[in-house]
Amino acid sequence: MVETRTLERKEADFFGAGPALLPTDVLQEAAHDLISYNNDIVGIAEISHRSKPAIAVIDDTKTNLKKLLDIPDNYEVFFLQGGGTTGFSSIAYNLLANHAKRTGKKGRAAYAVTGSWSAKAAEEAKRLGFEVDTVVNTKSINYGDIPPYSEWEPIKENTSYLWVCDNETVHGNEFQDTPGSDYLPEGVELVADMSSNILSKKIDIEKYGLIMAGAQKNVGIAGLTIYIIRKDLLDQASDEELNKLEIPLSPIATHYPTVVKNNSAYNTIPIFACQILKLVTQKLLKEGGLAEREKVNNKKAELLYKVLDSYPNFYILPVENPKVRSKMNVVFKLPSEELNSKFVAEADAANLKGLKGHRSVGGIRASIYNAVSLESVERLVKFVDEFAKANS
Amino acid sequence: MVETRTLERKEADFFGAGPALLPTDVLQEAAHDLISYNNDIVGIAEISHRSKPAIAVIDDTKTNLKKLLDIPDNYEVFFLQGGGTTGFSSIAYNLLANHAKRTGKKGRAAYAVTGSWSAKAAEEAKRLGFEVDTVVNTKSINYGDIPPYSEWEPIKENTSYLWVCDNETVHGNEFQDTPGSDYLPEGVELVADMSSNILSKKIDIEKYGLIMAGAQKNVGIAGLTIYIIRKDLLDQASDEELNKLEIPLSPIATHYPTVVKNNSAYNTIPIFACQILKLVTQKLLKEGGLAEREKVNNKKAELLYKVLDSYPNFYILPVENPKVRSKMNVVFKLPSEELNSKFVAEADAANLKGLKGHRSVGGIRASIYNAVSLESVERLVKFVDEFAKANS
Repeated sequence: MVETRTLERKEADFFGAGPALLPTDVLQEAAHDLISYNNDIVGIAEISHRSKPAIAVIDDTKTNLKKLLDIPDNYEVFFLQGGGTTGFSSIAYNLLANHAKRTGKKGRAAYAVTGSWSAKAAEEAKRLGFEVDTVVNTKSINYGDIPPYSEWEPIKENTSYLWVCDNETVHGNEFQDTPGSDYLPEGVELVADMSSNILSKKIDIEKYGLIMAGAQKNVGIAGLTIYIIRKDLLDQASDEELNKLEIPLSPIATHYPTVVKNNSAYNTIPIFACQILKLVTQKLLKEGGLAEREKVNNKKAELLYKVLDSYPNFYILPVENPKVRSKMNVVFKLPSEELNSKFVAEADAANLKGLKGHRSVGGIRASIYNAVSLESVERLVKFVDEFAKANS
Repeated sequence: MVETRTLERKEADFFGAGPALLPTDVLQEAAHDLISYNNDIVGIAEISHRSKPAIAVIDDTKTNLKKLLDIPDNYEVFFLQGGGTTGFSSIAYNLLANHAKRTGKKGRAAYAVTGSWSAKAAEEAKRLGFEVDTVVNTKSINYGDIPPYSEWEPIKENTSYLWVCDNETVHGNEFQDTPGSDYLPEGVELVADMSSNILSKKIDIEKYGLIMAGAQKNVGIAGLTIYIIRKDLLDQASDEELNKLEIPLSPIATHYPTVVKNNSAYNTIPIFACQILKLVTQKLLKEGGLAEREKVNNKKAELLYKVLDSYPNFYILPVENPKVRSKMNVVFKLPSEELNSKFVAEADAANLKGLKGHRSVGGIRASIYNAVSLESVERLVKFVDEFAKANS
């Protein structure tokens, strides 16, 4: 059968929360790579993960990430399968194994619970038998604010790391600035889940011991997770020592030293997902890097929150404090369930798609990740304005 | 930029061991789905894993697998990330948790070590703290044969499962028939790693408690693993009971009851990899199912082994017993390293690609998975014959 169709699509106004919109040109390139990679007789997903072209995809993706995020040489970038949920377990296993190496003790882990994702992370570490301290928990205010660090519980002795979820996708809050030495005792590592805002803004890598980010929201497709770790944190106590301290072992597939030693290909890396991440990061570099991206993302969020705030009795924002509002996931509600449904239905009819809120909180959520253009957001802003005028 | 390129490629004679060749028409379809799925404004990899179209992809893939393998209703099909390596840990965690539920005890696990993959599986279970018995180990004969079950060590009391790797990709052996009640005591489940031969032949599902198969060799791209489990094996002792028995807990992302309860989307399933598996299984069904596939695969293996055997002093087959030779990975060597290299180079020049043996064993390996056509194998057979005539 001769293939005659070309790979066209209109630019979509799509605000889905993840897996989410990706740049059309990236997908077109990836689609061709799937059929034939580098003019080879087969595509990128059909070659050995230990072949030269596959290794180059991994290495180029790492290089792009290092450039974009200005990652210092004493940090390692690697990839795992399993998304954020696998990060919840693997980070506890691996960092507590490092803590055991450094201190000879079974350490504790501290969690800032600022939304459903950090809550899940804490729950998983606890379930697996780790000592977990919750230093702040904003559930009682529906995760509507992040209190200043001065109000958080102090971090206990013998703590390995503090976990924060930099951007809570479901509840729509985001750290403006994560805790530094003003809050963190020396030797306690800051760990950030950046699954929904990685590469949306510049960050100071050196503040973090470890950053983990599932690719499928802001930078790629599901199946690949980015890890950025300070190299000294890869040192671990031996399995025997960990057994003696009753620290559970990581499955080998998520054992960071093994993964790093094998350049993210100890087991078969989903190379097609990595290729998409390579193309996305390549495009970001070409378009001016994260400074430029952050500028556009700030503008998008500013426009959208501004129109929502201009109808304070109509659009209800659960995150009242503007300083912790997410620039990626703009969450709001209308005064009634009927209006929520009407909003989603009319937006849909106006080709503004993917706006329904998370099933656990309802309402509306506009996810305005990197691939959502300023023009898309402007069309949404216009709709938000007109809908309020017609219905309030 | 207007996209004008179409998705063409020539049929390749590609014998790579995995990730491996896939049908061109499947990749073409998947490439279009990546840009726009079901005429939607976005592609299959950009939609929520809990949206209707994503759920339909999961359900249709399960249905196709059930039809192809004739899976009875008391079995569940589900998907995980992480490949076979994650299967090595997750199967031990989950089946021993089921054994604890059934017996109130910490059980043992038996492994038939017939190649490097089953060796790795046994090693991982042991490393994680499980009691592992090796009932047969053919390493001393370079995994060149599988002795009859009558010669295996008997399975100990309190054993949960026996692990076999149905097809050993690196060493090129394959079970003709896996152990049944002639060897297995009642209540001991047969677990098979079928990562490199799933859907290559008909199998009797009811012999197995659990089948695990990474998709990236015979049926899809890297990132998705198929699990087929008898439903009663999903019952597990509580976390508290497991802690008391000192049985390590599975990370939640690979906790089978949680994954099954959430229809393989507890965390974000790599839906693009699932879509490819859907298209591959759909094509298999359309082309006559596994009976037809098995016929072709048998023919391919027969032709290739026949020509190799016709030059017994030139082509050296490490798996001497024809009854356990793999029909997927045909492994052989030439009398010298120079001839091995010459074979690969001349085959490459003749457009017969991907024939280099695994780095751990050297020599030649022709992987003739489902997507490798009979015509491809016939061209390889011709080359094998001519190369022997010219060089022996």
